Amino acid sequence: MELSQIYAPIQADLNKVRDTLQSISRVDFTWLAEQLSHVVRETGKGIRPALTLLSGKSYKYDLTYLLPMAGSVELMHTATLVHDDAIDKSSTRRGQATINSIWGDEIAILMGDYLFAKAGEFVADTQTPRVVKLFSQTLGTISRGEIVQFRAAFNPDQTREDYFNRIYGKTASLFALATQSGAILGEASESSVAVMKEYGDMLGIAFQIVDDILDFTSTKEALGKPVGSDLIQGTLTLPAMLLMERYPDDNPIRKLFETRDNNYVGKAIEMVLDSSIVSDCYEVAKDYCDRACRNLKSLPELASRQSLLDLAEYVIRQGT
Amino acid sequence: MELSQIYAPIQADLNKVRDTLQSISRVDFTWLAEQLSHVVRETGKGIRPALTLLSGKSYKYDLTYLLPMAGSVELMHTATLVHDDAIDKSSTRRGQATINSIWGDEIAILMGDYLFAKAGEFVADTQTPRVVKLFSQTLGTISRGEIVQFRAAFNPDQTREDYFNRIYGKTASLFALATQSGAILGEASESSVAVMKEYGDMLGIAFQIVDDILDFTSTKEALGKPVGSDLIQGTLTLPAMLLMERYPDDNPIRKLFETRDNNYVGKAIEMVLDSSIVSDCYEVAKDYCDRACRNLKSLPELASRQSLLDLAEYVIRQGT
Repeated sequence: MELSQIYAPIQADLNKVRDTLQSISRVDFTWLAEQLSHVVRETGKGIRPALTLLSGKSYKYDLTYLLPMAGSVELMHTATLVHDDAIDKSSTRRGQATINSIWGDEIAILMGDYLFAKAGEFVADTQTPRVVKLFSQTLGTISRGEIVQFRAAFNPDQTREDYFNRIYGKTASLFALATQSGAILGEASESSVAVMKEYGDMLGIAFQIVDDILDFTSTKEALGKPVGSDLIQGTLTLPAMLLMERYPDDNPIRKLFETRDNNYVGKAIEMVLDSSIVSDCYEVAKDYCDRACRNLKSLPELASRQSLLDLAEYVIRQGT
Repeated sequence: MELSQIYAPIQADLNKVRDTLQSISRVDFTWLAEQLSHVVRETGKGIRPALTLLSGKSYKYDLTYLLPMAGSVELMHTATLVHDDAIDKSSTRRGQATINSIWGDEIAILMGDYLFAKAGEFVADTQTPRVVKLFSQTLGTISRGEIVQFRAAFNPDQTREDYFNRIYGKTASLFALATQSGAILGEASESSVAVMKEYGDMLGIAFQIVDDILDFTSTKEALGKPVGSDLIQGTLTLPAMLLMERYPDDNPIRKLFETRDNNYVGKAIEMVLDSSIVSDCYEVAKDYCDRACRNLKSLPELASRQSLLDLAEYVIRQGT
């Protein structure tokens, strides 16, 4: 199933979120307007704002609060990407030149801060202190996760627990904010909020595992950035961990991390593709998607519930 | 009058704000705890949280909301300083080594984001969407002001209007958030909120002018960073503008901006000190302080009102 079909129950409203995001580039300072329109032009698949809207659909669906919430989630994501790219010195993202590569690290730092501020304005428009608090806690979790990842770079001795904690922090926490906030703003019961949080947590982990697989199996064109970027940054992902476990001696990743010689990247990718590691990682991701969906049956039988189920399947099908 | 006397009506509560800020370094990740305690150790004079508390004192003084608000204002300030230092490649701040100089720019970016998140959590604890919105708008104004400043660096052709817009953005907007939020959380009337906003706006501008003067007249020990830092960064402040206006030909600042040769910095400082520029700038700052105070007579006659008046005088006396 295509994303357009999955998004059908909320597509019109998701377009409104995109319009809202693009409106932030209408400022009276031409140079800033140009930068902002560059940042919000390519918004990716919009999975995070879609999650807020789809979650809200099961309850009291009031766009007065759900639109700014969905916008705030997407903008927080965009802001963290702008900072990440500056930190990683990445030159392309979503097939476009990054802010840091065009205007320098200094502007990337300030532009990220400006986007956090705009995200904060949007979340304030929900008029709901509880989601404002969750929003801020999530930004704290993401920043902490990024700090942990940066500190752990090129360290070959990490546990699975380290990996899952890290991807929870950097990805799943924001998915959970997106789903939870949709339920909270829809005045759902606490048990329903917990179901939506669990869905976001688990789907986010599955999504990140698949993203980590694609760094081995995809193409530069499809990724919008070079293949093997994670290894080049020294980030140990699940496929890389499995490769190290299976070939403890003479392992290209260990050598890459020791020597920082990027010639080992191709060898590592080749070895992963020649093994069952990719399908084993998909199995792990699939298990998280199953866990994401297991309590969704408690939701009202609406098209939006089916979309959440289909989205979990879509996440797994990415790149397979 | 000493700051300790001015702060007397709120000193005990200001200590509570400091304790709250220090509590953010109690996290279970030792390395992060160490960094955070470094960041919140030296909190400066606490003028921004003091403004929130002093403003609140004229109205309904409820620490449940005022303490987190004061904490959020100070933490937002701290976060912007961490990012500024990374951008300016500064090595010392408040007499201490900066985050970027100890742990690198990458950690400074992420640590700033983490502090914004914590500031956001504090402001959420006010349970007041209006101040959350103001908080986010202020962060947007500050970031935009910093972008403008960065873009204008080493440009000798700036107007007074450019200068005042810039210092409003980077300094006065946060002073105004501090004072306004104290009044809003104290359930003050709209006209009282406007008075407190005006006080914050004007005091903030005066404060920044004095700060810009001190970059010429102070010592490295007193500033906690090298004298002439603004010129070295290419930031055109009021004393520098006056020097360029008075000596349009053969001006060391124009030469410094053209050549980036820091040997011109000493000459520029010497020429400013040998002229009436310093006292002329103090006159401008004093005028802003008078404007800050002109409507304070509408406030209840409390010790806190006297403190606000005394604080305006204290700002001017800095370094004179």
